[in-house]
Amino acid sequence: MNIGIVGLGKMGYNIALNLLGNKHSVFAYDTLKENVDNIISEGAEGAYSLKAMVEKMSKRRVIWLMVPAGEIVDSVINELVNYLEPNDIIIDGGNSNYKDSIKRYELLKEKQIDFIDCGTSGGTSGALQGACTMIGGENGAVKYCEQIFKDISVENGYLHVGKPGSGHFTKMVHNGIEYGMMQAIAEGFEVLEKSDFDIDYEKVAKVWNNGSVIRSWLMELTESAFNKDKNLDNIKGTMYSSGEGKWTVETALDLGVPTPVIAMSLMMRYRSLQDDTFTGKVVAALRNEFGGHAVDATKN
Amino acid sequence: MNIGIVGLGKMGYNIALNLLGNKHSVFAYDTLKENVDNIISEGAEGAYSLKAMVEKMSKRRVIWLMVPAGEIVDSVINELVNYLEPNDIIIDGGNSNYKDSIKRYELLKEKQIDFIDCGTSGGTSGALQGACTMIGGENGAVKYCEQIFKDISVENGYLHVGKPGSGHFTKMVHNGIEYGMMQAIAEGFEVLEKSDFDIDYEKVAKVWNNGSVIRSWLMELTESAFNKDKNLDNIKGTMYSSGEGKWTVETALDLGVPTPVIAMSLMMRYRSLQDDTFTGKVVAALRNEFGGHAVDATKN
Repeated sequence: MNIGIVGLGKMGYNIALNLLGNKHSVFAYDTLKENVDNIISEGAEGAYSLKAMVEKMSKRRVIWLMVPAGEIVDSVINELVNYLEPNDIIIDGGNSNYKDSIKRYELLKEKQIDFIDCGTSGGTSGALQGACTMIGGENGAVKYCEQIFKDISVENGYLHVGKPGSGHFTKMVHNGIEYGMMQAIAEGFEVLEKSDFDIDYEKVAKVWNNGSVIRSWLMELTESAFNKDKNLDNIKGTMYSSGEGKWTVETALDLGVPTPVIAMSLMMRYRSLQDDTFTGKVVAALRNEFGGHAVDATKN
Repeated sequence: MNIGIVGLGKMGYNIALNLLGNKHSVFAYDTLKENVDNIISEGAEGAYSLKAMVEKMSKRRVIWLMVPAGEIVDSVINELVNYLEPNDIIIDGGNSNYKDSIKRYELLKEKQIDFIDCGTSGGTSGALQGACTMIGGENGAVKYCEQIFKDISVENGYLHVGKPGSGHFTKMVHNGIEYGMMQAIAEGFEVLEKSDFDIDYEKVAKVWNNGSVIRSWLMELTESAFNKDKNLDNIKGTMYSSGEGKWTVETALDLGVPTPVIAMSLMMRYRSLQDDTFTGKVVAALRNEFGGHAVDATKN
């Protein structure tokens, strides 16, 4: 099948390799010339502009976007519509907000261009060797692209969830769950770490991966991390996030669903990015005000 | 190997079967005659009293306790010490509090009886087909029993964590993590359920189990639950707990470790057991007091 990849970062590059391995004709564009040159050497048809890529492709064109969520997706789509024709298909394989995906589907529908939202999970290794894909879109377009989703996913790792937006929605919730699971695992290891038992974290992660209730891919990654760095001495505990956890909590608030664990996981990520907190200053000041409790002074 | 099982509930019975399958000589006792009769029919040497069981066993005796945590463990141990001899070994395979296990180890040491705490995970199917065992105890006694732990565990599913208490401690933290993971998964599905996408939960659980970051045994169980009951219409959302989550939070408080996700998972279990809450009454009353906001009246 004829497929154009826009965005050759870690995920897009591996998706392109995965598709090439599955004997698809891959056309590829990235703003970085070096990424295009590299994918050409792997057997893809490279292009140094969006326009050039589209012109090389035969119809019905299928364009897979793998670019950072937000304005970049809109700017790529806004340019693409100048070159595409009715019936062509744009797949957004990135981590876009599902509400944006619904809007993009509606805008593109006016131009008779199909839009599919594809939540992609499994990390960079999954993108290369077999991902998990959650698809939202109209039946006709999804059916047309089905072989692509099947090929890049592991067995049973592809699902047409439902109408447009449902793919990114399901991926968003997946990531919300991921935040909670990661925080739970991490809190458990901190309890082990602060205890007076002399515990080998890698060995515990390994035994938990074999026969226990909490065996999971995340626990396998935990084992791998402790294997590389016995006590994680070389990693600072700052926890960044890239949107999906926040969107899950925002959606839960809109829907009136109590999601304290997912929300708390997100808050703990924010907390990890602060050295000191204004909350802490206020509480310390109040304890001092009413009880004369000591406060720690800042150092200048 | 010669091993006596005390307690033939769901877990103990399956451990006994597992040991029989591994060609151990199993002696078994339960307060329920029927359970003893059943295990005899499976090839174990049954006994209708603790004393009778111990008398049938050759030395160095290894006694595996699989009884509910708390006083029952103490009462069984208190009776057992009358029949055991120095060098015999008691293994507590249940979900005892690790602090109790340390005390029991110390008390039994005075009588020269070895004590091993064994956290056992994997549910009833794991007990039968291969569990995950986390062991605390002195090297000599653990070494003597190593073949038992290896045989009843899956490959790499056995770990001598460290000194007495560390097995039950590690199992406690495992269960704390389990609470958090379960709550995170469940919150995610409630967001799916409250959305206006028409989502097939079983299919989503299945796709999440294939290639995604959150693939896990718990997600497999989620898939299985939705397979049996499409929307869980037949299950009420009351979430019971049996101690380990509470102990994890208590331990975290003692150690000064922030574990908001594990704590919140526990709180949500407690909340699920309340139809109405006094907290809710107080907040409703206050909103009414300061703002005249409507309250819902109780119905008599």
